[in-house]
Amino acid sequence: MAKIIECVPNISEGRNREVIEACVDQVRNTAGVTLLDYSSDASHNRSVITFMGSPEGVMNAAVALAKKAAELIDLNHHQGEHPRMGALDVCPLIPLKDCTKEETVEYSKQLGERIWNEAGIPIFLYEDSASAPHRVNLADIRRGQFEGMAEKVKDPMWTPDFGGAQIHPTAGCTAVGCRMPLVAFNINLSTDDVNIAKAIAKIIRRKNGGFDCVKSNGFLIEVEADEEKGIPAHKYAQVSINMTDFTRTPLYRVVEVTKAEARRWGVHVTGTEIIGLTPMRALIDSCEYYLQLNEFDADKQIIENYLL
Amino acid sequence: MAKIIECVPNISEGRNREVIEACVDQVRNTAGVTLLDYSSDASHNRSVITFMGSPEGVMNAAVALAKKAAELIDLNHHQGEHPRMGALDVCPLIPLKDCTKEETVEYSKQLGERIWNEAGIPIFLYEDSASAPHRVNLADIRRGQFEGMAEKVKDPMWTPDFGGAQIHPTAGCTAVGCRMPLVAFNINLSTDDVNIAKAIAKIIRRKNGGFDCVKSNGFLIEVEADEEKGIPAHKYAQVSINMTDFTRTPLYRVVEVTKAEARRWGVHVTGTEIIGLTPMRALIDSCEYYLQLNEFDADKQIIENYLL
Repeated sequence: MAKIIECVPNISEGRNREVIEACVDQVRNTAGVTLLDYSSDASHNRSVITFMGSPEGVMNAAVALAKKAAELIDLNHHQGEHPRMGALDVCPLIPLKDCTKEETVEYSKQLGERIWNEAGIPIFLYEDSASAPHRVNLADIRRGQFEGMAEKVKDPMWTPDFGGAQIHPTAGCTAVGCRMPLVAFNINLSTDDVNIAKAIAKIIRRKNGGFDCVKSNGFLIEVEADEEKGIPAHKYAQVSINMTDFTRTPLYRVVEVTKAEARRWGVHVTGTEIIGLTPMRALIDSCEYYLQLNEFDADKQIIENYLL
Repeated sequence: MAKIIECVPNISEGRNREVIEACVDQVRNTAGVTLLDYSSDASHNRSVITFMGSPEGVMNAAVALAKKAAELIDLNHHQGEHPRMGALDVCPLIPLKDCTKEETVEYSKQLGERIWNEAGIPIFLYEDSASAPHRVNLADIRRGQFEGMAEKVKDPMWTPDFGGAQIHPTAGCTAVGCRMPLVAFNINLSTDDVNIAKAIAKIIRRKNGGFDCVKSNGFLIEVEADEEKGIPAHKYAQVSINMTDFTRTPLYRVVEVTKAEARRWGVHVTGTEIIGLTPMRALIDSCEYYLQLNEFDADKQIIENYLL
């Protein structure tokens, strides 16, 4: 079976349709990759592109995208709410199938080197690809933004991994790295007391002693009345979760702990939601747990895997 | 997304390697299909081939296989334990992806007509494609086997759907039809009393008032000692199930009813097994139930589906 990786580049343009389409075209026109989605935010002045394919195809598309973004986007004239340091601001690679984290780290280093060599943009390796612990977190690398980076990179702590102590005069610099697939997962509760959702969010997240690969927060969701469907206006508390590595912290475990903690307040789980995309494996793992499925080999026993 | 169907032809040769490989080659050499598996049983003198692909590709491969089987297999000289009526004995089509049961019934009729026109083998439509209720069940169609079919087809009740009241002199006739994907699913119990497994099997199967799409039986599984692993010889009762249409009777519902019934005897479910292949959907449906996942669209939200 073929290796498949996902790539979710963010470019610093969310308003000019022509520029956005010209960048997305670099993905569309590269062999071996499939464009999954792209969306733009005008106030952030930023677009997120999602595609996947063979490692070779993904690297080719990302290099082409880096070149086109550098050609069309000048950070000296960029304004928007979202922090940014480059035309192609960040370019994560995500192992999806038959590809380890270690291999994907290797691909990210090849990609970083190619973007520097072929587009002349200095590269920071981040997340699982970082060359030092203080360079894991994107927010730390990007602090100071485009306007401050030319000065920041002179500090040996912040020399780019490829390109040396400089930035591209208009395209800035780019963070490239491997991260695990992220699943956006919400758990809805039978209460409108947001404090219960906030308390559970604290219990399950790493930051406060919870699961290593959970980031979470509690929100109050207000639903307007829908007269056609006969649904009155109502509110409910929601635990909103980013599962940052479901291979280490699976969905079912977070749901079961949430149920157990909610009982403390006489509250139960009314439903859950996955927002956007998820790898199949995140759901199959939970299914195996609940069905008590033994010795199941998803790669060999799920028919669809023979088509990938 | 592309329509994908599966095909599981059975040919009446399970001993002669050259003949088996020549038949399997018809699948291997057809564009648009993927060979998943093939296995032969010498005492049955029969081989089962599993492949999938586009409807067009699958029909082309099945017609090529029917021709090759008719060329190389002479039922006048066939001996084996398994009942059979044709060189290509039975050829089910199974909808896997973006393809309804109704569409697959249509494909099976096209396939039956093509096998008659291009290979001269009379065809019975069976299962969901049957032209009358008494012709749904393969065992009923095949009763009398190859040796009795030339006489049987003269009865208007048993005229083949394509080819009229005759059989091919050496290749007999073939049953072609649509059936839903079948999942072979075992539930293991915390008891060695096989009567409890047999009682639960009766409760859950249609035959005795249970779920419409469940066939099941109870067995005693005897495991030999494994000294290396330190596992002593032991026995346990197993409910062995054929899920004949998981879109109508899902796996989780059978597991939950089995757990509830087992409690009647103070017994619990120790684990489950899926034997062989399953469509992804059979597991995703159960995952949605247990995670209480709302408004989930597997086609749009599971990344791998964009590659199929």
